[in-house]
Amino acid sequence: MSIPYKTYLSEKQAPDAWMNLRAALKNLPAPMLHPGTLNPVGLDDITPVFVGELARQELSDEPFISIPGEVMDFYKMIRPSPLVRAYALEKILDTPVKIYYKYEGTNTSGSHKLNSAAPQAFYAKQQGLTSLTTETGAGQWGTALSMTCAYYHIDLKVFMVKISSQQKPYRKALMETYGASVTASPSDTTDAGKKALAENPDTQGSLGNAISEAIEAAMKTDNCRYVLGSVLQHVILHQSVIGLEAKAAMDSIGEYPDVVIGCAGGGSNLGGLICAYAADKINGKANPRILAVEPASCPSLTRGKFSYDFGDVARTTPLIKMYTLGCGFKPHANHAGGLRYHGMNPTLSQMYHDGLMEAVSYRQRDVFDAAIQFARSEGTLPAPESAHAIRAAIDEAIKCRESGEAKTILFGLSGTGFFDMQAYKDYQSGTMDDYIPTDADLAKGFAELPNV
Amino acid sequence: MSIPYKTYLSEKQAPDAWMNLRAALKNLPAPMLHPGTLNPVGLDDITPVFVGELARQELSDEPFISIPGEVMDFYKMIRPSPLVRAYALEKILDTPVKIYYKYEGTNTSGSHKLNSAAPQAFYAKQQGLTSLTTETGAGQWGTALSMTCAYYHIDLKVFMVKISSQQKPYRKALMETYGASVTASPSDTTDAGKKALAENPDTQGSLGNAISEAIEAAMKTDNCRYVLGSVLQHVILHQSVIGLEAKAAMDSIGEYPDVVIGCAGGGSNLGGLICAYAADKINGKANPRILAVEPASCPSLTRGKFSYDFGDVARTTPLIKMYTLGCGFKPHANHAGGLRYHGMNPTLSQMYHDGLMEAVSYRQRDVFDAAIQFARSEGTLPAPESAHAIRAAIDEAIKCRESGEAKTILFGLSGTGFFDMQAYKDYQSGTMDDYIPTDADLAKGFAELPNV
Repeated sequence: MSIPYKTYLSEKQAPDAWMNLRAALKNLPAPMLHPGTLNPVGLDDITPVFVGELARQELSDEPFISIPGEVMDFYKMIRPSPLVRAYALEKILDTPVKIYYKYEGTNTSGSHKLNSAAPQAFYAKQQGLTSLTTETGAGQWGTALSMTCAYYHIDLKVFMVKISSQQKPYRKALMETYGASVTASPSDTTDAGKKALAENPDTQGSLGNAISEAIEAAMKTDNCRYVLGSVLQHVILHQSVIGLEAKAAMDSIGEYPDVVIGCAGGGSNLGGLICAYAADKINGKANPRILAVEPASCPSLTRGKFSYDFGDVARTTPLIKMYTLGCGFKPHANHAGGLRYHGMNPTLSQMYHDGLMEAVSYRQRDVFDAAIQFARSEGTLPAPESAHAIRAAIDEAIKCRESGEAKTILFGLSGTGFFDMQAYKDYQSGTMDDYIPTDADLAKGFAELPNV
Repeated sequence: MSIPYKTYLSEKQAPDAWMNLRAALKNLPAPMLHPGTLNPVGLDDITPVFVGELARQELSDEPFISIPGEVMDFYKMIRPSPLVRAYALEKILDTPVKIYYKYEGTNTSGSHKLNSAAPQAFYAKQQGLTSLTTETGAGQWGTALSMTCAYYHIDLKVFMVKISSQQKPYRKALMETYGASVTASPSDTTDAGKKALAENPDTQGSLGNAISEAIEAAMKTDNCRYVLGSVLQHVILHQSVIGLEAKAAMDSIGEYPDVVIGCAGGGSNLGGLICAYAADKINGKANPRILAVEPASCPSLTRGKFSYDFGDVARTTPLIKMYTLGCGFKPHANHAGGLRYHGMNPTLSQMYHDGLMEAVSYRQRDVFDAAIQFARSEGTLPAPESAHAIRAAIDEAIKCRESGEAKTILFGLSGTGFFDMQAYKDYQSGTMDDYIPTDADLAKGFAELPNV
């Protein structure tokens, strides 16, 4: 059978339930703990902050959760995403491997984030909420949520990491086009923001701090909740549509990957992409390698500690057992804004801890080398975040050229680089930094880990 | 049968030949004339400027021209584009009509332009050329050609209309990422550019002037030719993949449009979109309305003259019989940069003249109203150019709500608005201008029409 360049599932083939990767694990991740009592968090602890159904999903051990019809309708507008055979890249690499990628960047949000934004806005509407708050780093999550809040008629306030709002001014305009209000974080509109500014007036901001501001703003607003686009269990639950579609499409062309590669920030793209193959691996049905790729500037898996930590800088969230650089770790200004988070989703952290997943980190310039090689051969300009996965896929393909192994690679191309042109300009002009934290830098973050 | 939100053709269903709309006409468009002799232009006249095969296609009366295998391979990377049923927009408009759109904006160039960029770069490579020159307005054509020149390993020099290069700085960065060199036009690198700057040092540039510079640069460079992304017959030939795919997809779901709507600048999107339905209309097989939508600021069909005119400001091209505002018409700074051209493809001009096509113009703010209504319901952010078609489709749907007619509308969504955020910002802040040329403005352009 000749394999097409692109494989799209039909509406009838689309998944109608999300897969809960957490429930597939044999070693369940440790429970979230209340930071005051250190008791496992229950529904009552988190529903004041979270939308009720999302809180329920966060704690759920059901293996699958049905996708509501209204969300299925939204998915039909923005999905399916294509599974692409990278024939042109394979040719340029002169490699015996077959390379596939699942491309999530064709929608206006430019990334996979819409997969979780849709149900989050829908459940908020269903609960009768009138507004939501959130944070955004690279701007992809904020854009996605702006789109779905416009669709479901909910007000949205976005705290955008300051450095990203400077690097990507049009991301802000895009969110505003969809009716959201956007505030650069840290801001003087919250106590958490004021504290961060007092400590360091020149701070470039961080996801962790923006989270603190968004939570505070939600708590102070009537009929409002906080939502977020990564790290948490319910987010990777929603993102499972990527992996379920990818596996169905791979199955339909008779392919099974030897290795599945995804970039890893908070884990939403990675957790979504790998879910179906990870389940096969856990159940012993197959043994694909699963590879997380992170920036060397923010190496939570490859150099972090597996420890309880806060999700935010202001230490207001429940404690989460995860690989972390410490919630006080200040990520360097790195253009892959979506990967600048100190921690990692707890299910993925547990998998890494149990040897079910590998991890590798790359320096920024090496990542952009791969991005440009990909863009010029496959046409599509990748988001810097996604280019981490490309770098690893290319390196795997080069290894196979040398060893002669005809492996099958699947990677996640989580977004487009349309809004990252400043980073591409910096790379081409040679002004892009290539920072790696020293052990001493990391020690500072570890020193502040809660003693649990 | 329940109609899916999106219909994709399989690779096997993809068209393997372009349709030549010109050859379908009963009244053929008048031939291009040599501006010196006023004789019809032959191959020998244009091959010094154009790639040989493109020159041949420009003059061809063959009804179909096979798509080379190498171009088919490129198309498989970037196509098929989806045919989308606009269920959410229909619901918001509370209209009995069915609205479909063919969306060309999911590739990195962000528009339909890639459909012609691929064969143009391929034929240049096949001829052994080492470089190409071109102009770009909104930046979509320049981006598309940069991508295909990177793919086929050809050097590219792009003259970008100055106002667009200011409004869209990241478009330039994107073209450079693909290896192209980009010059704001008018520039001091050509005689045509120097002349324009001498006449008006503060000029914002125009497509017509950028064309003059690109032609001059090509003529002065060894082993180089000039290519362009609109207006000419071979361009709408290549764009026929849009319309052939659209009709095949509509056929597959049992639909036939009552009206086909496309935005019109030089005509490449419009000519591509309508080709199959126009042929039905010409042959008497069906009688769909065909509607061209242009900006009120540059109304070549609705207020232009059907006359021989030059394609460029410097009056170096062959004379083309078309609807035109005069090659000296200076289009106002209008954010829909891709629609700022003084003329219109000759086949489309002939169709309009013969009553086979209607035309309407809209003011910019009304177009952005429609763009935002579309973005907030359908999710996708449209290019300002494409939003002209949305405006007309919405107005048609509203008319049908009032009349109760359950029509079927097909419009072309030629591109994404990712690179037009400055325009969306201006619209939202109320600083967007809404200019319409006066009759006196137009009279100046008409006065300079060649006396042929």
